[in-house]
Amino acid sequence: MDIKEYMQAVGQAARRASRATARADSRQKNAALMAMADAIERDADKLVAANRRDLEQAVAEGLAPAMLDRLTLNPQTVAGMAEGLRQMAALPDPVGEMDDFSYRPSGIQLGKMRVPLGVIGIIYEARPNVTADAAGLCLKAGNAAILRGGSEAFHSNQAIAACVAEGLAAAGLPADAVQVLATTDRAAVGALITMPEYVDVIVPRGGKGLIARVSAEARVPVIKHLDGNCHTFVDAHADLTMALKVCDNAKTQRYGTCNTMETLLVHEAVAAGFLPAMCAVYLEKGVELRGCPTTRELVGDARVRVATEEDWDTEYAAPILAIRVVDGLDEAIDHINTHGSHHTDAIITGDYANARRFLREVDSSSVMVNASSRFADGFEYGLGAEIGISTDKIHARGPVGLEGLTSQKWVVLGDGQVRG
Amino acid sequence: MDIKEYMQAVGQAARRASRATARADSRQKNAALMAMADAIERDADKLVAANRRDLEQAVAEGLAPAMLDRLTLNPQTVAGMAEGLRQMAALPDPVGEMDDFSYRPSGIQLGKMRVPLGVIGIIYEARPNVTADAAGLCLKAGNAAILRGGSEAFHSNQAIAACVAEGLAAAGLPADAVQVLATTDRAAVGALITMPEYVDVIVPRGGKGLIARVSAEARVPVIKHLDGNCHTFVDAHADLTMALKVCDNAKTQRYGTCNTMETLLVHEAVAAGFLPAMCAVYLEKGVELRGCPTTRELVGDARVRVATEEDWDTEYAAPILAIRVVDGLDEAIDHINTHGSHHTDAIITGDYANARRFLREVDSSSVMVNASSRFADGFEYGLGAEIGISTDKIHARGPVGLEGLTSQKWVVLGDGQVRG
Repeated sequence: MDIKEYMQAVGQAARRASRATARADSRQKNAALMAMADAIERDADKLVAANRRDLEQAVAEGLAPAMLDRLTLNPQTVAGMAEGLRQMAALPDPVGEMDDFSYRPSGIQLGKMRVPLGVIGIIYEARPNVTADAAGLCLKAGNAAILRGGSEAFHSNQAIAACVAEGLAAAGLPADAVQVLATTDRAAVGALITMPEYVDVIVPRGGKGLIARVSAEARVPVIKHLDGNCHTFVDAHADLTMALKVCDNAKTQRYGTCNTMETLLVHEAVAAGFLPAMCAVYLEKGVELRGCPTTRELVGDARVRVATEEDWDTEYAAPILAIRVVDGLDEAIDHINTHGSHHTDAIITGDYANARRFLREVDSSSVMVNASSRFADGFEYGLGAEIGISTDKIHARGPVGLEGLTSQKWVVLGDGQVRG
Repeated sequence: MDIKEYMQAVGQAARRASRATARADSRQKNAALMAMADAIERDADKLVAANRRDLEQAVAEGLAPAMLDRLTLNPQTVAGMAEGLRQMAALPDPVGEMDDFSYRPSGIQLGKMRVPLGVIGIIYEARPNVTADAAGLCLKAGNAAILRGGSEAFHSNQAIAACVAEGLAAAGLPADAVQVLATTDRAAVGALITMPEYVDVIVPRGGKGLIARVSAEARVPVIKHLDGNCHTFVDAHADLTMALKVCDNAKTQRYGTCNTMETLLVHEAVAAGFLPAMCAVYLEKGVELRGCPTTRELVGDARVRVATEEDWDTEYAAPILAIRVVDGLDEAIDHINTHGSHHTDAIITGDYANARRFLREVDSSSVMVNASSRFADGFEYGLGAEIGISTDKIHARGPVGLEGLTSQKWVVLGDGQVRG
């Protein structure tokens, strides 16, 4: 198979199908989602069996345990995929939403209509459930999708693809509305990200290596998520009991997620009263601490390792936390804007002016007052589902749900107006 | 001067200044805009004199008349620049706008805040007035700007840059908030579009050559405008008197603008009753007509040249019009989506269902019913000013004003919520 030719054919088919998905009404799209969910539920055993083939090969190839964990499908995760698709069916259809209509002095009535982006390419790694999630989200937003999963999940993805295709057919939508690539050739990715004539946006989901490669080589706009180096700043005016609870949750509720706190910043005025108790909580949970000199002095050199410059820039995604005592809000904001990844940052404070300045001046996709950074998530934000969390500022920022997979067009209603 | 080093320094300075422009309040930004306008008005003679140097060189180098026209500053165009800046000062400040706040089941209160993009690079050609417009728009939206005008307008741009710098200084904003490149080296463009660490978005304004080069080589997101191949479809249910008036305006009010109609589509049911009268209007104004066989039959072979496939794909930007008779709405929509440039397309109809289908199914940045395509413009849309018209779907679509130069961030207000 000539990969370039194959990808050209895939692109053309997707572009053609995107006209049908853009026109499809809500009932038709929802019927497809429900039928996909039914097929996945019915085929649960098949999916788990296909997944077992992938797992056996992955074990033979010595894949890391974390990777195996992401790759695994079991009856619960399969049920979760079906449930996710049904939830998408229940979401309001963004396509065709119209708003902001008003009359202009010329007499035209001007507003906006939400429309699909067109063709969306998703490139992901081990997680096979992305196949169902991404197919459903792209379709609900009126787009055609080209899905390129990891080679390690090949059989799982093909089995899920069969259920997706069944759902599309049941609703009378073209099979090419969702194409799951039937190749593990890496050249397919290179082709997919350089076909602006057929692909409107690329969403890479996976490790930094994948995202860096896609960003560097894409000739198509990319919605991406780089790092999740999140901060919590405990201000001088913080309720320290609340700070203890929120900072505990932000770090320890889950270690591997991108909205987990990686650096704790503490105002020097409350450091002595706060850090010893806070660090005791972390140490009891087995979190390794790396602190600035003041932190080590307050908590004890034996309990806190030395934090280097590199620590401020690191997303550990592990039970490790960097801690720094700062002399005030300015230093905290400066630290976050300099070392952070513009993902999610929070302040714990009772001071109105400091809260307001933090919200305005911290340049991150989510900024929070008195809440755990772990809330930065499509489900928690009520988007229903998310295709990823964007750390870009262009087009979509933060959790990307259906709206991030759409665009808008201007609508002009007139009765014969001409320009003078 | 090492261009790469120079551009790195420019980028770093812009990034630094963008923190100040993002924090600047409305009063400060407006004061800068008003002071720029005052300086431009006061220096009108200086600007015209600097422009004369550019014009003399351009004449000596044999620049095309259309290019000379775009390059020319006179007392009226200088006054227009100042007036444009004052209008920007009067616009509402988009930065810090908050909306969509609601409580989530977890108890957090979630909303969005509008924020600057950061650093915006504008690459343009002969028009020196872009220097003032772009500086003003970028600043009002809280961004730092790097402006790279055409070498043919070098002295004009430097003179305007001095007025812009004076305005920034008067308002206490850093000089680097707007940097007008002091080099005509083409390598500066190459550097500007490949510094994602310092530049958040590039807006190229100019001919297709420039835009194609920038799109192909940029490593930074680009907001661009490719072609303006706009259509008007006269439906079977059109009020033909209205159609005559609107189609006249859409083609002949100005020939060189991107929202000018380039192809007229007419429903076969009204072609015989409409086209002879319509074409008489065009021919009287000296518009060259290129038609399909039916058009030529109805209007006369001597008056209408043969339209080739290429004509359907062409933005003439000249007194030339392609005309095609179609068998109905489907063929019209298909023609527009296939041959158009997704810029602006209009239907003239009295039929409710056809209007609705046209609005939904035509995939263009502006879709119109019973109005002239010439309305697709930032001023007519009430954006106050525009940095350009985007034919992309990502981030900004159609006329791009202040909002297109901003992003949003999520804001979470809590009182100690943690994730369960």
